[in-house]
Amino acid sequence: MPDPTTMTTGDGATEALSPIAVPHVVVLGAGFAGLTAVKALAGAPCKVTLIDRRNYHLFQPLLYQVATAALSPADIATPIRSILRRQKNAAVLMARVEGIDLQHRRVLLEDRTIPYDYLVIATGSRHAYFGHDDWEPLAPGLKKIDDATQIRRRLLLAFERAETCTDPIEHRRLLNFVVVGGGPTGVEMAGAIAELARHSLVDDFRAINPAEARVILVEAGPRLLPAFPESLSAESKRALEKLGVEVMLGRPVTDCTASGVMVGEIAIPSRTVVWAAGVAASPAARWLGAEKDRLGRVIVGPDLSVSGHPEIFVTGDTAHVPLPDGSTVPGLAPAAKQMGAYAARAIRARIAGTTVPPFKYRHLGSLATIGRAAAVADFGRFKLKGRLAWLLWGIIHVGFLNTYRSRTLVALQWIWAYITYGRGARLITSPGVDPE
Amino acid sequence: MPDPTTMTTGDGATEALSPIAVPHVVVLGAGFAGLTAVKALAGAPCKVTLIDRRNYHLFQPLLYQVATAALSPADIATPIRSILRRQKNAAVLMARVEGIDLQHRRVLLEDRTIPYDYLVIATGSRHAYFGHDDWEPLAPGLKKIDDATQIRRRLLLAFERAETCTDPIEHRRLLNFVVVGGGPTGVEMAGAIAELARHSLVDDFRAINPAEARVILVEAGPRLLPAFPESLSAESKRALEKLGVEVMLGRPVTDCTASGVMVGEIAIPSRTVVWAAGVAASPAARWLGAEKDRLGRVIVGPDLSVSGHPEIFVTGDTAHVPLPDGSTVPGLAPAAKQMGAYAARAIRARIAGTTVPPFKYRHLGSLATIGRAAAVADFGRFKLKGRLAWLLWGIIHVGFLNTYRSRTLVALQWIWAYITYGRGARLITSPGVDPE
Repeated sequence: MPDPTTMTTGDGATEALSPIAVPHVVVLGAGFAGLTAVKALAGAPCKVTLIDRRNYHLFQPLLYQVATAALSPADIATPIRSILRRQKNAAVLMARVEGIDLQHRRVLLEDRTIPYDYLVIATGSRHAYFGHDDWEPLAPGLKKIDDATQIRRRLLLAFERAETCTDPIEHRRLLNFVVVGGGPTGVEMAGAIAELARHSLVDDFRAINPAEARVILVEAGPRLLPAFPESLSAESKRALEKLGVEVMLGRPVTDCTASGVMVGEIAIPSRTVVWAAGVAASPAARWLGAEKDRLGRVIVGPDLSVSGHPEIFVTGDTAHVPLPDGSTVPGLAPAAKQMGAYAARAIRARIAGTTVPPFKYRHLGSLATIGRAAAVADFGRFKLKGRLAWLLWGIIHVGFLNTYRSRTLVALQWIWAYITYGRGARLITSPGVDPE
Repeated sequence: MPDPTTMTTGDGATEALSPIAVPHVVVLGAGFAGLTAVKALAGAPCKVTLIDRRNYHLFQPLLYQVATAALSPADIATPIRSILRRQKNAAVLMARVEGIDLQHRRVLLEDRTIPYDYLVIATGSRHAYFGHDDWEPLAPGLKKIDDATQIRRRLLLAFERAETCTDPIEHRRLLNFVVVGGGPTGVEMAGAIAELARHSLVDDFRAINPAEARVILVEAGPRLLPAFPESLSAESKRALEKLGVEVMLGRPVTDCTASGVMVGEIAIPSRTVVWAAGVAASPAARWLGAEKDRLGRVIVGPDLSVSGHPEIFVTGDTAHVPLPDGSTVPGLAPAAKQMGAYAARAIRARIAGTTVPPFKYRHLGSLATIGRAAAVADFGRFKLKGRLAWLLWGIIHVGFLNTYRSRTLVALQWIWAYITYGRGARLITSPGVDPE
């Protein structure tokens, strides 16, 4: 087997390494799971290469705030290199993964291959359209920064166009906003759009009244936030309706066109549809030729490794990890972090010739914010709603941001927004927009 | 003549207007000149429509800090609507101007026309390639937010690619950064790139040493900052060289290709070239069929109006305003603001049936920053350099930002960057980048 250290990076890195070849751990994806795994391998007798196609770690739980103009992308994205700058055994590679050569134990990139001794797959998930991939350009989802700035652009352009639109039918359509999916992202998006329209943009327009904007949240299932206790689902519906959001339950979106969405027989004309209805795992199962579940997640063993490949661990949203109650570990940041940390512990043990007990998920609680001073929280034994849950949500999210810089900037902008009702990042950017 | 109020906006605005038709002032461009003109017309007996193809006012003097990852776009861009939300006689229209129908006094937009009684043109300037427009994609300039994020992406990607590049010639080329033009923007860009490479990115890479980056500033004229006194030009050269910038004076760039630039006989291989060598006015002169200077600026009369069209004022970077010493009013933010305020005063006087004395430019001083704790300032009677000039530069720029929000966020990030040497907005974004 070739020495992984010389093939992976240039001269600088090789010199920095010990002359004795240490195992090479390759981690794919710098989300919560991947980044936690790399950090948990600090000081371990191995070399770690973290591969991501972006140069930053994204704090995804706050991405909807970029989409609704409350925060800037850089407030919730941190350069991966700067997070790992002090970790001497870690290198970062910005590249797109094309596949995995299981037999020769190497990751295939566009223009080269990276050999590994251990592999941690943490490539996450993206939105899924359940067989309607043609809906994607019409109803963008919210996974990447570019998604968020695209949704922000669409939202703000809809108001700009409504301001000058003299056709009353088109005017109405421009001011209808549809959010598809009643999970945490959908609830947060719907609440934030309603706030944007009814508070932040009030006074800004002359020919339209932003408060005439309708925000419609469509959920196929019988209640919002299906992962939460029913009382909190009902509470979140009440809080959204107080903000002016129309909640449609038990009805799936049956069609999606450039003119709007169909919910069964009901036509909702709209120029701005946001997709928050479902996710599918990254193509890791295909790379591995491994067994996967309905959502494309890789079925892993009790130690998160892949059947027949004890050297490969799958973590985060890409992994299907059964729970005793028949469900699976949810796609939440704390779950991803636990899996990343576990994979690192398992690799450390493997290198040391010992073993670790099976992965055990500890559910820390569920939180979703609905709007200004409204949120729901479920910590099993106790549940919270309203202002207190919202404060807790804010404190926890600021606390989990990666850098003091992000924490300060986000906290400051939230306090500002709370006092002024304003949203500071209302920029229509990106090339190719008309009017350019 | 049709009633301007009914053609311009929808029903809401018409109702808000006084039933007596007031003159309609149309302002093109929401830069420093245009925005100042609109604000100076607050409370005047007229209706004002501000047209810009973007939805935000950009604080352009700090745009280079977005390009070099120190600030986020939203920190220096403010939604025009929110700036003018309290000004009841002002409406904002996001649209692209296609031309002006002088005879019928109306502005031509893509899909409609806007009649005016008075017109203020403040459409600014953009970078000029002096007959080499094919250089534009190779050496982007810095006028818009999209320019800044594009340059940021190129800068950061160059380091990412150098990290994995095994070809020593390509490696070298990736780490050569060329800035063309030694005016304030070129000096600021060169200094900021050098700081980024030598301070902010140190420790972030394993295979390359960011300090091996070369930053080359090419100026065709005999000295940097030609608008400043010679002693400060020399000082800025010294300060840049201290930062590691190589300054080439008296030599124009003669060719620009995908592989680098030619400076006479000297070939500089480079993948990242930034154009800061010149500007040309917007196409206002063409719209007006008016006399223009070499830079495309409209020759205006003593009251900034266009010959034969006393109802049209041209302001800011679009206007050629001669000074007693034979030069012209410079393309600086304070000059643009003075012209915008003057145009508003002139219109108020015209409406009231009185007159105003000719426009008189008051030069407040020149400031340019070179890097960390280094700047030059020229206030005629006294000159400043070094740390004190830099502090002054910072205070003045924070003070001139449009909102308290921007001021706080910018000041905070500068203090942070000063203490940590870090740059927080190091994101490679925008679609269509490889690796996507």
